[in-house]
Amino acid sequence: MQPFTTADFAQRMQRAVSDATRAGLTGVLVTPGPDLVYFTGYQPTAITERITMLVLQQSHDPALLVPILERPDAEGAPGVAVTSLTDWTDGSDPYAAAAQLLEPGGRYAISDSAWAMHLLGLQAHLPKSTYTSMTETLPMLRAIKDDDELARLASAGAAADATFEEIVGVSFAGRTERELGDELANRLRKYGHSQVDFTVVGSGPNGANPHHEVSDRVIQPGDMVVLDFGGLKDGYGSDTTRTVHVGDPTPQEREVFDIVREAQQAGFEAVRPGVGCQEIDRAARKVITDAGYGEYFIHRTGHGIGLTTHEPPYMVEGEARELEPGMCFSIEPGIYLPGRFGVRIEDIVTVTETGGRRLNNTSHEMHIVS
Amino acid sequence: MQPFTTADFAQRMQRAVSDATRAGLTGVLVTPGPDLVYFTGYQPTAITERITMLVLQQSHDPALLVPILERPDAEGAPGVAVTSLTDWTDGSDPYAAAAQLLEPGGRYAISDSAWAMHLLGLQAHLPKSTYTSMTETLPMLRAIKDDDELARLASAGAAADATFEEIVGVSFAGRTERELGDELANRLRKYGHSQVDFTVVGSGPNGANPHHEVSDRVIQPGDMVVLDFGGLKDGYGSDTTRTVHVGDPTPQEREVFDIVREAQQAGFEAVRPGVGCQEIDRAARKVITDAGYGEYFIHRTGHGIGLTTHEPPYMVEGEARELEPGMCFSIEPGIYLPGRFGVRIEDIVTVTETGGRRLNNTSHEMHIVS
Repeated sequence: MQPFTTADFAQRMQRAVSDATRAGLTGVLVTPGPDLVYFTGYQPTAITERITMLVLQQSHDPALLVPILERPDAEGAPGVAVTSLTDWTDGSDPYAAAAQLLEPGGRYAISDSAWAMHLLGLQAHLPKSTYTSMTETLPMLRAIKDDDELARLASAGAAADATFEEIVGVSFAGRTERELGDELANRLRKYGHSQVDFTVVGSGPNGANPHHEVSDRVIQPGDMVVLDFGGLKDGYGSDTTRTVHVGDPTPQEREVFDIVREAQQAGFEAVRPGVGCQEIDRAARKVITDAGYGEYFIHRTGHGIGLTTHEPPYMVEGEARELEPGMCFSIEPGIYLPGRFGVRIEDIVTVTETGGRRLNNTSHEMHIVS
Repeated sequence: MQPFTTADFAQRMQRAVSDATRAGLTGVLVTPGPDLVYFTGYQPTAITERITMLVLQQSHDPALLVPILERPDAEGAPGVAVTSLTDWTDGSDPYAAAAQLLEPGGRYAISDSAWAMHLLGLQAHLPKSTYTSMTETLPMLRAIKDDDELARLASAGAAADATFEEIVGVSFAGRTERELGDELANRLRKYGHSQVDFTVVGSGPNGANPHHEVSDRVIQPGDMVVLDFGGLKDGYGSDTTRTVHVGDPTPQEREVFDIVREAQQAGFEAVRPGVGCQEIDRAARKVITDAGYGEYFIHRTGHGIGLTTHEPPYMVEGEARELEPGMCFSIEPGIYLPGRFGVRIEDIVTVTETGGRRLNNTSHEMHIVS
C-alpha cells in the first residue's frame, strides 16, 4: 500500500473545515486516536493525561499542540508538515496554551474519545465556548472512504477470508474456545494484521451471548459455533462473522441459520445511496421478526468501520442519515436462543453508486467442521 | 495473590463518597479504565462509544449503568454485587438513562479519561449539573495503596529487578535497540507481567531524548544505554530505569552518571509523610542544578503508579499536596546531553510512616555490559 501523503492529509483537514462551517461550527478539535491518525498520520506512543490536540478552523491554519517531550515524534508525521506546531512543558498550564488556539466564544466539535479532563480544562478557560461531540455533529467526517482507504479495507477483508478458509479445516471438537480464538488471531496476523481486536468463539450456549469472547469451554460435537474476528491491517479494519457447526445440525439449527442468512442478504440488498441507515436495520430485522424470532435479535444490525473496527455510521433504528457512496459498515444480524445456541453472519459492505459491495467474501453456506 | 473481595470494593466506594463529600462534591462518576477496576474489579472487554458508568454519591447506593449486551460480563465482577445495576439498549438514549442516576444540580468529579462524548451527553441532559476531573478535585483517590496493593507493586518491582539482572548478562554491542527491547519485554513476561507498557532502549545519542522508545540503531561499543521498562503484573505496575555502559565510560560519562545517581538518592531521602510532592522534585533537581546540568534535566521527577504506570501523585514543581503513607511513585531524575547521551535512574518508592521504601532494588552502580 502507498502511504498517505501530506497532500492527502491537507485535503482531509480542508474538508473537515468545510463540513464544520456547514454544520454551524467554528471548528473541529481532534485528539489522539483514529481522528488524529486520519488527519495527520500521527499516533502518539500512548494516550495519556498530557494533552495533544489538533485545531481545525476556518479562520486559521491547522494548529497542533503537543507536550514538548513528544514534539520530535509529532514532527515525523506526514500531516503535521501543514500544521502550525506548538508545544507545552510540564509544570505549565496546557489548557491555557490550548485555549489560545481557540476563539473564546467558538463552537467546536471534539473527538468522541477526547478525555473529559481535557474538555473540562477548555471549558474552564473559555467559559463562553461550547462543544459537541464529533458523533453528534460531524459523525460522517471519516465515514466516506476514498479509493486508497477502500483498497485497505478490501485487503483486510481478504485476510479475514483467508483466515476463515483455514480455520474451518482445523479440529473444533475437544478443544477450548480459547485455543480456537488463538488460532484465529494467529491466522489474522499471518495474513497481515498488525492488530487483532477480537476473536469471538461462542460455542453451544455461549453463542447465545452476542458479547461473549472466548472461554475455557471445550467445544462439543453437535455445537453451533459463532466465530467473529477482526482487527487492523495496514491501519484499516476487518470484522467478519461466520457460524459453523460441529457435525450435522438439527432441523431447528438449520432453520435459524437460514433465517439469519436470509436476513443478512436482505440487509445487503437494501444498501444503496440515499437510503437511511435505519432501513438496513429494518430490512434485516423484518426477516427475523417475520420468522418469529424478533425477540432474539437483541442488537443493532451494524456499525461503520475504517481506522477503527467500530465507528459511525450505525445501522440502527433512529439513525435516518442517508448512505453515500464510499461508506463502509457491517451487516450482522443474529438470533440468540438463551442457554442453547446463537447464529450470526456478518460482512463488511461498502456503498457503491448503485448498491452495495461486500469487502469480505467467504460463502454464507453453513460450514460443517469436525 | 488473593483476589480483592466484594468487601474491599465496597470499602473503596465508601471512601470515595466520603472524600467527595469533603471536597464539596455531590459524587463521583467512574468510567471504564483503572478507576472502574479500582472500585468494582470490572473491566469491559473494550472501551467504546457505548457508555458504562458507576455513580457514587452520598444520597444513594452505588449505581452502575451498562449497555445491556455487557450486563452478563459486569455481573461477574466482584464489586458489582454491591451496586444497583441498570442497563440501556441500543437505540435508546443512554444519557437520559445516565442522567436519571444523577442529581440535576449536582457537582460531580468524573474519571479523567471518560469520553468527552459522554460528558457532553450528561451536560446536555442536566444543564445545571457541573463537573470537574478526578485529577482536579480528587487526584489522590487511588493514590494511597493498602497492604494488598503494596504487595502487588512490590511483586511487580521484583519482576523488574529480575529482568534487569538478566539483561545485563546479554550482549549489547552489535545488536539493535529493538532487539534489546524485545529481550526486556520477554523477560518481563517471563517474570509474570501480563502486559508490557514500555521498553525504552536509548543508546548513545538516542538516550538524550527522554521520550525515545526503541529504534533500529545498532548499539556500539562505548555507548551509554538508558533502559526504562515496565508494565503490569497481577494488575499493578512496574517502572524501572537503569543506565548501563557498553565497555568503559569516559570521565564525563562517569561524572554525569554519578550526579544522576546522587540526585535520585536525594529525591529518595526527601520522602516522608507531610512533605509536598514538589519537594521531591526540588531535592533531586537541586543536585543536578548545583552540578551545572540543570538545563539538561527537562522533565518532572516522578509520577504515581498503581493500576496504571502513570497516575497521580506527580512529583513536579507546583504540586504542593503532601505525601501520605501508602503513596507510591517513581523518582527518576535524568540528564540529557543532545546529540551525545543520556542518563536516567528510576525507582518506584512508597511512603512509609517515617520515610520512603524502594519497591525495586537492583544496584545503582553503573553496570558495564558487553
